[in-house]
Order: sequence, then C-alpha cells, then structure tokens
Amino acid sequence: MARGVIERICAFDKRYPLPPGAGTDAVHTNPEYSLAVTYLETSGPGFGTGITLTLGEGNRLVCDAIEMLARPLLGREIEEVMAEFGRISNEIANDPAMRWLGPHKGVVHLALASITNACFDLWAKSRDVPLWKLLLDLKPEQLAALLDLSYLDEVLSKEAAIDLLRQHWASRPEREEILSRGYPGYDTSVGWMAYDDNKVRELTERARDRGFSAFKLKVGSADKDRDLRRANMLRECAGDSATLMFDANQQWNLPTAFEMCRELAGLNPLWIEEPTHPDDLMAHLALTKAIAPVRIAAGEHFPNRVVFKNFLQAGAIHFVQADATRLAGISEFLAVSLLARKFNLPVVPHVGDMGQIHQHLVLFNRIALGQEVVFLEHIPHLRCHFVHPAQVEGGVYGTPQEPGASSDLNDLRMD
Amino acid sequence: MARGVIERICAFDKRYPLPPGAGTDAVHTNPEYSLAVTYLETSGPGFGTGITLTLGEGNRLVCDAIEMLARPLLGREIEEVMAEFGRISNEIANDPAMRWLGPHKGVVHLALASITNACFDLWAKSRDVPLWKLLLDLKPEQLAALLDLSYLDEVLSKEAAIDLLRQHWASRPEREEILSRGYPGYDTSVGWMAYDDNKVRELTERARDRGFSAFKLKVGSADKDRDLRRANMLRECAGDSATLMFDANQQWNLPTAFEMCRELAGLNPLWIEEPTHPDDLMAHLALTKAIAPVRIAAGEHFPNRVVFKNFLQAGAIHFVQADATRLAGISEFLAVSLLARKFNLPVVPHVGDMGQIHQHLVLFNRIALGQEVVFLEHIPHLRCHFVHPAQVEGGVYGTPQEPGASSDLNDLRMD
Repeated sequence: MARGVIERICAFDKRYPLPPGAGTDAVHTNPEYSLAVTYLETSGPGFGTGITLTLGEGNRLVCDAIEMLARPLLGREIEEVMAEFGRISNEIANDPAMRWLGPHKGVVHLALASITNACFDLWAKSRDVPLWKLLLDLKPEQLAALLDLSYLDEVLSKEAAIDLLRQHWASRPEREEILSRGYPGYDTSVGWMAYDDNKVRELTERARDRGFSAFKLKVGSADKDRDLRRANMLRECAGDSATLMFDANQQWNLPTAFEMCRELAGLNPLWIEEPTHPDDLMAHLALTKAIAPVRIAAGEHFPNRVVFKNFLQAGAIHFVQADATRLAGISEFLAVSLLARKFNLPVVPHVGDMGQIHQHLVLFNRIALGQEVVFLEHIPHLRCHFVHPAQVEGGVYGTPQEPGASSDLNDLRMD
Repeated sequence: MARGVIERICAFDKRYPLPPGAGTDAVHTNPEYSLAVTYLETSGPGFGTGITLTLGEGNRLVCDAIEMLARPLLGREIEEVMAEFGRISNEIANDPAMRWLGPHKGVVHLALASITNACFDLWAKSRDVPLWKLLLDLKPEQLAALLDLSYLDEVLSKEAAIDLLRQHWASRPEREEILSRGYPGYDTSVGWMAYDDNKVRELTERARDRGFSAFKLKVGSADKDRDLRRANMLRECAGDSATLMFDANQQWNLPTAFEMCRELAGLNPLWIEEPTHPDDLMAHLALTKAIAPVRIAAGEHFPNRVVFKNFLQAGAIHFVQADATRLAGISEFLAVSLLARKFNLPVVPHVGDMGQIHQHLVLFNRIALGQEVVFLEHIPHLRCHFVHPAQVEGGVYGTPQEPGASSDLNDLRMD
C-alpha cells in the first residue's frame, strides 16, 4: 500500500468541445462540457484526480474556489484525512471567509465536490483498489465517519446511518451478483434538443442494436408541439416495450408543467425529469399529486443533502437523481443515498462525471444498501478523454477493475 | 435629465476590517466585511455603484463573476435597459455558460445582485432623484417590467403584480407621512457574539440613550448556557418594554432549535432568527408549529424569489428578511416584497448593504404596497466608507435626499 502525504494541490480548467448538437437541452443551446479538476500530488508515486462538471466559462470560478478551499489538506496524509473526512469536509464547507458565498451551494460547493472526489480517488489508489471495493470494504463506523450528516439529525443521525449499513450487511452476498452481471445503463445521447427527427431515430435504432432498452429525450422547449411530436416519434421508434424518460431541464413554470406532464403521460414514461425550477419544492409536490401515476425525477440541481432531505420528507420526487459532481462529492452522494434508502426511493444518478465515478457508486448502493437496480445514465461524449473510460457493452456497464475512481484524464497524465 | 450609455464596467474587490469583536456570530469568528462592487461608467458624467456583501477572501470570485455576467450591458443606454430590466435580468441569470454554477444562487447570483444594484443607482442618478422616489414615480406597468417573475406564475403573475400595485395606489397619500417621520431602526451591533457581558450592557445602554428600543443578540454558540445567560442579561438591561430578537445564524440542528427556542420563548422575543439551515423548509415548518406563538424570521440566506415563494406558501416563516444584496438585487427584492404582500407578511430586510439601499426600499414597500412598518436593521460599522451614510437619529432612519441608491463609496470617488 503506497501511502502519501498531499504535497501539492492544483486546479485545472479543462474544456471539451462537443460534436454539433450534442449536449443541447432546453437551457443550453451550445454547451461546452467543462471539468474543474482537482489534482492532488503526494510525496509518493500516488496522485488523486477529482472532477466536477460545469458548462463553460464559469468553470474558471470553480477552479479558483478549489485552490482557496483545499488548503487545509496540504501536508496531510490521505489515510489520516479519510479517517475523519466527515469532519474535514464540514470544516471546508463552513470556511468562514467562503461560507457566505453559499452556504453549501453554487461555486463553493462544486469546488468541494471536486476536492472530495480527488481525495477518494487518491485514497482508493493508495489502497490499490477500485472505489466500489474501497467503499464496500469499510466497516459501517468507518463509512459513517466519511459523512457530514449535519442538519440531518431528525432523519439520519450517525447512529441511524450505522444501523442502516449493519441491517444490510448479512445479505450482501446475494446482491454481489451485480459485480459479474454489470449495471444496466440508459442512453441520454439519443435525444438532445438540437437533433432533428432523423438523427433521433437513427441514434435510437443504433442504441437498440447496441443493447440499450431505455432512452431519454429532451423536452421543455418553447415549442410544445415540437416536444410532443418528438416524444411520440421516440415511442414509435423505440417500441412499446422500451423505457422512455422525458427531461424538461427546469424550463416549465407550474401551469405549463401540469399541461405538458398530462400530455406526455399517454406515452407511459418511466419518469418526467426536472419539470420546473429545482428550488421549487412546493411546485414539485403539487405536480406529483396532480399527475400521478406519472412519476417525477429530479436532483441534478439540488445542491446539498438538506435539500434532498426536504424533497424526500415532503414526498415531492420519486427518483433521486443525486450527482457526486453537484453535491459535495462522493461523501455527500453517499449521505443522500442513505437518506433515499430511509425513504425507500431509488437513487438513479445524474452523471456530471459521464458515469465514470457513479459506476462505482451504484454498485455500493446496490450491495451495501440494498438499493433497487434501476439503471445508470450513459453519456459517451467525453470517453476519449478519460484514462479508463467506462466499459459499456450490451447496454450494461462493466465493473471497473482499475484502482481509483476512474476519473483520471489523458491530458493530465503525469507519467 | 443626464442620459448615458454604459461604456465601461469594472468590478472592485473592497475589504474593510472591523473593530475587534464587531460582526461576530455563531459562524463568523473574525469577519472581514467585503463588498463586491460593480461600477458602471457612462458616456455622460453619470456613474452607477452597485454592491453586494461577502465576508472575506471569496469576494474575489464574485468580482470575477460580475465581469463575466455584466457584458450584455455594455453599450446600452440606461433608460432603455431599465424599460425591460425584468427580461435583461432573466437573461443574465440564465447565461448558458454560467447557469450551471447556480442556478440562481451562490456566487453568480451575488454577482447579479451587484450588477442590478449598479443599474438602479445609475438610473436614479440619471433622473436626479433618490431611489425611493424613482420607484414611487413609476406606473404599475413600469414597475412590473423591472421584475423577473418567472416561476412565480401560480402565485404572482405579471398581471397580479400590476393589480397589487394598483390596489394600493389611491391610498398612498395616507402612508406618505413616513417620509417626514422617518423609518424606525433596530440595533444589531449591541450583541455580537464575541462581545463580553459588560460590552453588551454598555452598548445597549448607549443605544437606548440614542433612541433605540429594539435590539438583536447573537445566539447559536456551542455554549448554550452562555447564550441563555446573555439573553437574560439583555432583557434585564433593555427592560421589559424593549423589543428583542435572537439570531442563531443557522447553527442549530432541529432538535437543538426546538430546545433553545423553547428556552428563549420566556424572554418574549419578537422573533428568533435563522434557527437552522436556510435550505431546510421542512425544519422551519416543524419549528413554527412547535414553538408558536414565538415567531421565526429568516431570509438573509434564501437565494432567490422561488425559495421565498416556497417558505411563504408553506407558512414556514413569519418575518421576511429579504436582502437586496443576496437576492438578485433591488428588482428581485421588489418581487419578494410583492410576494410577501400577497401572503400578508412583513418584510424586515437583512442589511448586507448596512441599510444604505434598504432605507429606500422600505419606504417604497410602505407607501406603494401598504407594508406594515416594523423596523430596519441598523449596523454602523461601514458608515465612514459611504459617500452618503444613512442618517440615523433618535433611532430613526432619515429619508435620503441625494440622487441614487446611497451606495457610492468614498474610496471609489472618481471626482
């Protein structure tokens, strides 16, 4: 086991152009996928790479925040850091000179996501195991020590978190078959907003041939008729047995959300995603009541565990789309996963990391928490930039075997 | 009327040290009051100064965001900008390369606050009137065109906003007496967390002598006994007829909030402020039910109008502490004020601007919306830095007469 003291912390502002139309939605007409990267250098051969996603120029602000916030990690040994990561993460999140900028949201929280993910990557590499195995090998107390559970007390105290992990301990072996079977994926890249009908059809057919049976389509445009036409076309093209999801990317106000969800309900989607503003708990709640049995997915823009707790307590969502690159990294993702388990709701991550880190986390959620297997979003556009791109075959994510969190980037290879 | 085209936009990162112990609370042990300033230069003699508050090093991030987000204003004439400010503000808030960093919260939203406040300052100066008069002189349709009311449709459509303003139009004269009487203040600076008992006593007595009858004390420390002792001491020192508020600065989890609010209830506070995490609507709601008739104030960390709408709809707060330097500036403050009027709750601003801008806004809220007069927070620590510091005499804010929003800073004087 290579142990290492963190000797240097750098932030890199990486921008990646996309193919024409890729990544477009109701908000983003010409996105530039951008990663704010935390790079941890150690005294040994080990290094850690952490990422968070943004969509362009603002990425620079997150990189600057990383350099400000990560300083407490300098000179610390990684095992020592991870033994009390919940406390350290809480301290960084509450840095008195930075907290006013959130708290626990926006640029500073995205920066903490990147920093946290770098720590977990370094830790897993230093133990020479993939992230999923690192997490599964931890005792309940060690896992709980990774988490900042502050403001969750009435729902998930530290003791309750440990109990939850213990409850599912004995039955782990029966769920470990997921490691050999692989975790099913769904394809988001067939239905970007700017793609014309022919392209959506062509991509859907190609994805079906590659083994996918679940597809997402962007809706939420100003042209409701176009949205509905495309949704009908996708159902026709994918077939009655396919699983469809419609994603409005927050663009509807509540009256429009009522109207469009009712229109789209006839196509029997698995969920309708981000129907309105992500801060609008009361609107989500009204909507879940009005459009039942159609179900709502949201979370890629919920900034922290406190907001997730609220939506879960209120019963305002059905699918928990936590994202370890939006929340304060892997540790807050795990806290939200425990919360979701408490409320018996499935975690179906949004993949700001293109699935690289989340392919590990869904395995942990399945085996350690007994989370239902739904599927994991698949977005292929950045795969050539990762050192170990996710292996998706037959519509299924293979179980990563390389040490770390699979977040190393080719253009940051230091070897 | 001096008209001017915006020819140059600068951001300034201004930091102001405070006297020992001043500004301390349960979170901030050594705050550095920092203003992220937007400075708009025009083709004419006019200029606009906009401010937002942060508490230290992170201020630089807001300044960088200002320079990125303000570009659409370059080359625009201020009357033309303000004729459709609601639309322009919405466009800036949804800049596709920056929106992912919020949306509508954190660094990017604070930057928009500063930008917006500079526009209003420039506009008022170009019309040669103080901000309060500028706003009162607008027709309901013109006022509504300043506001981004997106995601409020089911509660406050544009038409509903105009109706609300019209309803209170005829009765304005009876409320204009506030202009000559002045707006009552309350004193936050007697009870900072780091002040010892003698200092709190001394400052409270001095503030009483200066005409104040309402005082705020910081609680929420790790030492509950100290909090309770200080609270009792303040009641004793201020007298039974004084109005007291206790401010926990978000530091309690829900179980502690239950306990401490019940303990403090016996001292008959007007409100308990920020009892727990500002994102925790469900906790605020549980608390309002559990501790009635004690009332809850919050809002200085609610990032936008959508969050305020939620807390108002749920009935989770009693006093609306909107802040034009936390929300997206004066225009979103006005949108929240209209919302609060709809729900018949008083707006009692938190003053990230030290009251400079809010002294105008409470006059508008009183006269144009018929808002109840409660009082306006008074924090004197930065008054020497403003060109026209608020005139507070006998515990009452005088009505500002100089053109603009009273946000010009001495160390940015360009004359």
